[in-house]
Amino acid sequence: MEEYIIGIDLGGTSAKMAFVKPNGEIVSKWSIPSDTTEQGSNVTANIIQSIQTTMDEAKLELKNIKGIGMGTPGSVDHQAKTVIGAYNLNWRTLQPIGRLFNDAFNVPFYLENDANVAALGEQWQGAGDNDEHVVMLTLGTGVGGGVIIDGKILHGSNGAAGEVGHLAVAVESGIACTCGKIGCLEAVASATGIVNLVDYHIKTYEGDTILARLIEEKQDLSAKNIFEAAVKGDEFSLFIVDRFAYYLGLAASHLANTLNPSKIVLGGGVSQAGEFLRSKVEQYCIEYTFPPIRDKTEIVLAQLGNDAGIIGAARLVTVDQSTEEFID
Amino acid sequence: MEEYIIGIDLGGTSAKMAFVKPNGEIVSKWSIPSDTTEQGSNVTANIIQSIQTTMDEAKLELKNIKGIGMGTPGSVDHQAKTVIGAYNLNWRTLQPIGRLFNDAFNVPFYLENDANVAALGEQWQGAGDNDEHVVMLTLGTGVGGGVIIDGKILHGSNGAAGEVGHLAVAVESGIACTCGKIGCLEAVASATGIVNLVDYHIKTYEGDTILARLIEEKQDLSAKNIFEAAVKGDEFSLFIVDRFAYYLGLAASHLANTLNPSKIVLGGGVSQAGEFLRSKVEQYCIEYTFPPIRDKTEIVLAQLGNDAGIIGAARLVTVDQSTEEFID
Repeated sequence: MEEYIIGIDLGGTSAKMAFVKPNGEIVSKWSIPSDTTEQGSNVTANIIQSIQTTMDEAKLELKNIKGIGMGTPGSVDHQAKTVIGAYNLNWRTLQPIGRLFNDAFNVPFYLENDANVAALGEQWQGAGDNDEHVVMLTLGTGVGGGVIIDGKILHGSNGAAGEVGHLAVAVESGIACTCGKIGCLEAVASATGIVNLVDYHIKTYEGDTILARLIEEKQDLSAKNIFEAAVKGDEFSLFIVDRFAYYLGLAASHLANTLNPSKIVLGGGVSQAGEFLRSKVEQYCIEYTFPPIRDKTEIVLAQLGNDAGIIGAARLVTVDQSTEEFID
Repeated sequence: MEEYIIGIDLGGTSAKMAFVKPNGEIVSKWSIPSDTTEQGSNVTANIIQSIQTTMDEAKLELKNIKGIGMGTPGSVDHQAKTVIGAYNLNWRTLQPIGRLFNDAFNVPFYLENDANVAALGEQWQGAGDNDEHVVMLTLGTGVGGGVIIDGKILHGSNGAAGEVGHLAVAVESGIACTCGKIGCLEAVASATGIVNLVDYHIKTYEGDTILARLIEEKQDLSAKNIFEAAVKGDEFSLFIVDRFAYYLGLAASHLANTLNPSKIVLGGGVSQAGEFLRSKVEQYCIEYTFPPIRDKTEIVLAQLGNDAGIIGAARLVTVDQSTEEFID
């Protein structure tokens, strides 16, 4: 009998789901919209209903399901299997997700923070090559991330480890982060951060730049525009991308000096700038990493794209994160 | 029958040893000089001889010894139980320490890097209060450290995790570190680092300072002098101590944002500046740490002094670092 794992990657727009083989291969995947009305009270019920329907259609029974893993936004208690403060789902109060899944399915259920789950997916089946020590930086609207140590998610003393987006690497810039601090990585090295860098540096830039028109019509300025202008050789855009890469490389060096991972994975929408960005980040990371560590740390691009979440969620079922023990 | 652990803290000047109860209490301790002649080839044999003599004098037999743990300078392979490149012992070639101990004593033997062992000691019996997630920064001639996660030493992918002294927190200063990089924590926040800060800032300082005479006679400038002058209210010295605390606080925030430890311990000779320094470091750490983490992270002063090494070495016997399993 073939055994499957169900991986769930819940986000503010949709919940992605998949049947995944224990070796990480996706058998089939689907998604449903996240219903954020009524304080998001239908979100979990809709996911459960969708899984039941899909299992029926595929003629799968619970005995075919090894377990269910789920990544969610918000502040997760992975032991109690609850989440609170997932504002993009309107989840302001404690959500007893583990209890709801246990009531519906008599199989093991695991819940983790979505950024950690994506990091676990990339570590296991993506750019991490299943190495034991891997860190992921997800460059999107903000900067998320996750730290994998010995193949398991690092939680820290109150479940908040891996807040790599809030490493204070740009204190001297005075640029404010949405968290209230000054100089966070997220404030200078995300989709919004790169626009902050343009705003900050354009004041003292005296040359020409093809960004000028976009800067006047501010709504058009985006990470994509800026990277494209840099690739075309626009001097100011190249300078901005260099600053962006410097901050990422400096943050990567802090992670390397502290954790000695074999790989630091760059993911998220902004990482689509690809090798052009990766090589610059690597150069700065090398510059600031202790010699015995830097030769052993690669900066690599994420490989799983949007599938990192469902694959990482499935991994929760085969690497028990709570007891720190490998099951498979 | 009372069982003891033998803890060994090997340094370039001496090897400290102790009989330690499994609960961490030191029963008796002694030390012997480290013989660094002949490429340090007598160091391990002398330690083994000293343990045998001391056991005989105390009428202890091997059946009374639960195991032996040892911290050593240099680059340690904790699985092979070997060390290489401990230059203060003149150990340039691979030292098969585990084999020598196994030949002499038929009890479990564990070997780790000295900075990691001191961190483990403080985490277990000192300022760490046996919390699961603790980081230590040791401020001496350089800045060493160790990261304890789930009560165990973090090794990383090639045993070099916890190189906190080489976090690049002072890149803007251009101050060089002995490792060849620019702006390492060690280059600005150690006993030598604070003198580097004086050298760097005195050029542009126009006021009076009681350090002036010492600065002219450069050999007298020390961390102790500078902290004493600051405590007396000398404005320039206060500025230097503030910069020193800023860099330490910034480094501590990087560790907090990444690892979410409950405690960050300041140890080593320079930490004798005590609460005067601790409170300033804490203030900067709070300023740069992500809000959900900063309220849960304490900056604390080390409590075990020179005993951290022998106590941490003894702990190696009750928390197996290689299998990541708790024995006791």
